[in-house]
Amino acid sequence: MRALVCDHGLRCDPAYPKPALPSGEALVRVRLAGICNTDVELVRGYMGFQGVLGHEFVGEVVQPPDPAWQGKRVVGDINAACYACETCQAGRHTHCPHRTTLGIFRRDGAFADFLRLPIPNLYPVPDFVTDEQAVFVEPLAAACEILEQVAIRPTDRVVVLGDGKLGLLVSAVLRLTGAALRLVGRHPDKLAIAAAWGVAAQPGSGDLPAGWADVVVECTGSPTGFALARKLLRPRGTLVLKSTYHGALPVDMSALVVDEITLVGSRCGPFAPALRLLESGLIDPTPLISAEYALSDGEAAFTRAVEPGVLKVLLRP
Amino acid sequence: MRALVCDHGLRCDPAYPKPALPSGEALVRVRLAGICNTDVELVRGYMGFQGVLGHEFVGEVVQPPDPAWQGKRVVGDINAACYACETCQAGRHTHCPHRTTLGIFRRDGAFADFLRLPIPNLYPVPDFVTDEQAVFVEPLAAACEILEQVAIRPTDRVVVLGDGKLGLLVSAVLRLTGAALRLVGRHPDKLAIAAAWGVAAQPGSGDLPAGWADVVVECTGSPTGFALARKLLRPRGTLVLKSTYHGALPVDMSALVVDEITLVGSRCGPFAPALRLLESGLIDPTPLISAEYALSDGEAAFTRAVEPGVLKVLLRP
Repeated sequence: MRALVCDHGLRCDPAYPKPALPSGEALVRVRLAGICNTDVELVRGYMGFQGVLGHEFVGEVVQPPDPAWQGKRVVGDINAACYACETCQAGRHTHCPHRTTLGIFRRDGAFADFLRLPIPNLYPVPDFVTDEQAVFVEPLAAACEILEQVAIRPTDRVVVLGDGKLGLLVSAVLRLTGAALRLVGRHPDKLAIAAAWGVAAQPGSGDLPAGWADVVVECTGSPTGFALARKLLRPRGTLVLKSTYHGALPVDMSALVVDEITLVGSRCGPFAPALRLLESGLIDPTPLISAEYALSDGEAAFTRAVEPGVLKVLLRP
Repeated sequence: MRALVCDHGLRCDPAYPKPALPSGEALVRVRLAGICNTDVELVRGYMGFQGVLGHEFVGEVVQPPDPAWQGKRVVGDINAACYACETCQAGRHTHCPHRTTLGIFRRDGAFADFLRLPIPNLYPVPDFVTDEQAVFVEPLAAACEILEQVAIRPTDRVVVLGDGKLGLLVSAVLRLTGAALRLVGRHPDKLAIAAAWGVAAQPGSGDLPAGWADVVVECTGSPTGFALARKLLRPRGTLVLKSTYHGALPVDMSALVVDEITLVGSRCGPFAPALRLLESGLIDPTPLISAEYALSDGEAAFTRAVEPGVLKVLLRP
């Protein structure tokens, strides 16, 4: 099969071996996949991953262990857990120490004609949700994860920092809380997407006074973003970290103690609510699509994905 | 009056002016006061404080704005807030941006014959609670603050790092949750105090496997303590920071995101529950008393307080 392989760089392999199916796993034909910033980082050497890239996808089950799944259109939770260890039994399967992660860690990913995942990872996509919407379920679930971790009240004041793909999806989810929400970015065209969703989006923190926010969600991954988040947050506020940072960030821990700040690291999220938000029409992420490429043009797609101003680039096998 | 003054060092002033009383404040004769690590840091220049030191005390109201308070034995919340600003109105008076703090920031403290505090800061001490117990209310309230911020469940596994005064008081409070609690320290005599309270206290993290704890409370204030806390904490666990750190600590923020760690800065706490815990006999902090000095021997008391192995040093005017 065709596959986009990360192997000290990126290459399109026209004859990569089709996945062999372990017991309990389904073969899925990929219908559409999305390039994430993590994919770009993996190509640059993050986590030392070698294999087929890609973890955002919608596909069709072509070879399930249980015939009930045959032909179903699905999205898939990227963390394949053991469901036997203490962590899994405590309900934290996305942190299973034995997990493999689709296109990220010890498991080939979605930038290929086919992928494999265990049945518990698969979620049928409602008919009403298009492929172009369903391909956003994974990052939308990551945005929903914030509300799994932090109780945001309708009376809260919330700032999202960063108008990249994740910042936009986080804004789309958090505007549903009824909280007073501001998206702070620096790209007029990206801010316009959020504004069209009804989000108060602004270039720079401008009129926001220090200590304005009850909750700040940091989606820039930059030290200046972290510093701005701290400045905008009130004492006893919550700072949600959605982005990873390069290297160690020097943090004034004493100030965190004196201001009694809560810092919450936030990663992968629940797929079922993300699908519900798409099905109900409460969120439509398709304005984030910048371009679509054929899988065989994968290298060109990656080149495009890192260009300034570009949001989601899709790959169609 | 006599006072122990921080002024580019420490000096005992036999003729410091008695506090002048603004409207709404009470004059309190100090019966007993305690030296905290923060006092030692203030003498070393922390926060640039100049004035009378001391924020742990029990005293007697000698000149109240309301005669109902006359003669009452009291402890006092150290943060004197405006009760008018948005922060105060939201119930976060200990973070009032206009606050003064007893013996720490823009308000003379308790190492003196007299101090002054607003009436809302004062808490009557039940008869059954001795002065030697009541003088611990402030740090005991700081230990209670953890449970104001974090819901610790009886089925949780909790590690307290550090067998100093604060670590011991935190252990005394957290053992009441029914959680599986371990105190990790390095001083056999201090660990023995916790053991006598029924806390599983151990020198070094020894048998505790990585990821064992649902909650870790960091009371060492050292970078190695923070690193050990991270190691002992499970994914999605909560790391409570009770100590301040010198300078900026380099933190691997990406690991916080990947492991979805919650970091909670924790400072001053509620006085009423601390008094209830003393009155009920559930906590008796008096084994922490290492020595008592006359106020006029304040310099000697400070010398003693920083000696290795010494816990609480009291000052009696």
